Amino acid sequence: MAIEIFVTGGTFDKEYNELNGELFFKDTHLPEMLKLGRNRVDVSTKTLMMIDSLQMTEDDRQLIVSECKNTPADQIIITHGTDTMVETAKRIAAADIADKTIVITGAMIPYKFGSSDGLFNLGSALAFVQTLPKGVYVAMNGRWFNWNNVWKNRQTGRFEELQKVK
Amino acid sequence: MAIEIFVTGGTFDKEYNELNGELFFKDTHLPEMLKLGRNRVDVSTKTLMMIDSLQMTEDDRQLIVSECKNTPADQIIITHGTDTMVETAKRIAAADIADKTIVITGAMIPYKFGSSDGLFNLGSALAFVQTLPKGVYVAMNGRWFNWNNVWKNRQTGRFEELQKVK
Amino acid sequence: MAIEIFVTGGTFDKEYNELNGELFFKDTHLPEMLKLGRNRVDVSTKTLMMIDSLQMTEDDRQLIVSECKNTPADQIIITHGTDTMVETAKRIAAADIADKTIVITGAMIPYKFGSSDGLFNLGSALAFVQTLPKGVYVAMNGRWFNWNNVWKNRQTGRFEELQKVK
Amino acid sequence: MAIEIFVTGGTFDKEYNELNGELFFKDTHLPEMLKLGRNRVDVSTKTLMMIDSLQMTEDDRQLIVSECKNTPADQIIITHGTDTMVETAKRIAAADIADKTIVITGAMIPYKFGSSDGLFNLGSALAFVQTLPKGVYVAMNGRWFNWNNVWKNRQTGRFEELQKVK
Repeated sequence: MAIEIFVTGGTFDKEYNELNGELFFKDTHLPEMLKLGRNRVDVSTKTLMMIDSLQMTEDDRQLIVSECKNTPADQIIITHGTDTMVETAKRIAAADIADKTIVITGAMIPYKFGSSDGLFNLGSALAFVQTLPKGVYVAMNGRWFNWNNVWKNRQTGRFEELQKVK
Repeated sequence: MAIEIFVTGGTFDKEYNELNGELFFKDTHLPEMLKLGRNRVDVSTKTLMMIDSLQMTEDDRQLIVSECKNTPADQIIITHGTDTMVETAKRIAAADIADKTIVITGAMIPYKFGSSDGLFNLGSALAFVQTLPKGVYVAMNGRWFNWNNVWKNRQTGRFEELQKVK
Repeated sequence: MAIEIFVTGGTFDKEYNELNGELFFKDTHLPEMLKLGRNRVDVSTKTLMMIDSLQMTEDDRQLIVSECKNTPADQIIITHGTDTMVETAKRIAAADIADKTIVITGAMIPYKFGSSDGLFNLGSALAFVQTLPKGVYVAMNGRWFNWNNVWKNRQTGRFEELQKVK
Repeated sequence: MAIEIFVTGGTFDKEYNELNGELFFKDTHLPEMLKLGRNRVDVSTKTLMMIDSLQMTEDDRQLIVSECKNTPADQIIITHGTDTMVETAKRIAAADIADKTIVITGAMIPYKFGSSDGLFNLGSALAFVQTLPKGVYVAMNGRWFNWNNVWKNRQTGRFEELQKVK
């Protein structure tokens, strides 16, 4: 059974439009990144949407939840903008998809920029989804967090625990 | 307790000498890579040697084994040339360091080249070392392998299981 | 006498702010780019401003003109946003700085992005300023244009002649 | 009349073979580099050989000379390994191709490495070939040199004049 990767956009996939100087979305870079990482894990990639997570609506989150439910895969990675990653994690957890490992990841810098953290995050998300027990997680900064014990510190751009786990 | 990262060289850290056109080792790129990945896991990096793993001697492997034993860390990553990664994994397993999770990783393409798999592998190794049970593993191609069930297929450059695990 | 490089910002020097997802200016990348190109031409770099050329005011252009006049250098490169590059070229030409070769260049993609044309443009601008006769020029797309025979085609992002020169 | 670009290999086009860890030649990266530079100068690219310039034989140089003679183009760029670039320049000059501008360029670091000077050198070579008078030149380090007044300083990796031109 392949690992399912749902693409929703986010900084991961932002590109630079050289005609108007703005950032925008075209196609996902996931397949290119998996190739660069010489990935040999069996994965299936599906683009659900290509949006900035600040624009994500209730309907968009509903779609993500139902895709997580409906896929036969029991290991799922979701690439997602970092700003509302935690919110989507909560929504998925509320849907009580108890028999799957779901890891949400993203990037602080677009993959197409030289200095992106995207490839590192993808490598860690892929490892976490294979090894963590059933549950909903956020994977950023080389770490994993339970969906109910994480927030994005917008001053530093880092993901942190709400309370220190012993 | 920080995760210990032992650097031994390998393709990961090869650089291009522009004066003679040869590949060589200078300093490790691990700290730079961890910064690029916005890593926030507590790690301690120590360079044991900077060599091509085809040049690795019995004494070199002995040093790696004893460093694994002596560090107080119980989660260890070793960056290593891919050609004899499996051999070093066997030596460590034979030393019976039963209470630690040890993950050996590397890269097919030097980090300094645009097309390196290094950052992806480092991300996955860091995730595996935090989540796999005690044991000795090789992490390549987004996968993890038990030390006694892996080989490098030199025709394809991929790591594969000796026998399919069910 | 060193070649003078005046930095005014533009796409060349845009960076990605990972905290708010916006493009912004910090320091110029010119010194880093010259080092990457192993440049051995004697140059002096001075930052006049760090702005998007769509924001460039009359006062900003006045400053550029007076700096071109006042520098003892008779070979000058100006890095500049592409959108109003031609307008600034006209202003300099109007100032009648007859005894200097002045080359304005820029980039369609920020240098910090993997896919930038910046290094190519800088290499060509540096060559043009050493070899073209006195005058005011725009250097983009591997070509040079007289200040009064060039426009930026915003549909294609390319610089073109107003009328074909025989 | 298009500018002719003759590709002969050299560091410019070296790649890393991930199966054996050696550098090798496959296809030239010139078209990709010209696209990256958003080049709009009319050029025609022809690969004459793909070799390290230390391996270049008398026959190879003879081929380069006769191609320079036979092309209808009067502006020619030759990409070449830096080690014997000057020797090839001398051979071309000796052939007395008096009515053409011929610029030889190369790179200290392969284009496929993140830190290559190749794109900078290509940009400058393309500018020099359009602006320098008839003759045979070497273009490196942002500079141009007459074929009979240049050597490669192997201690520093830089190209220098034999005697200072006033």
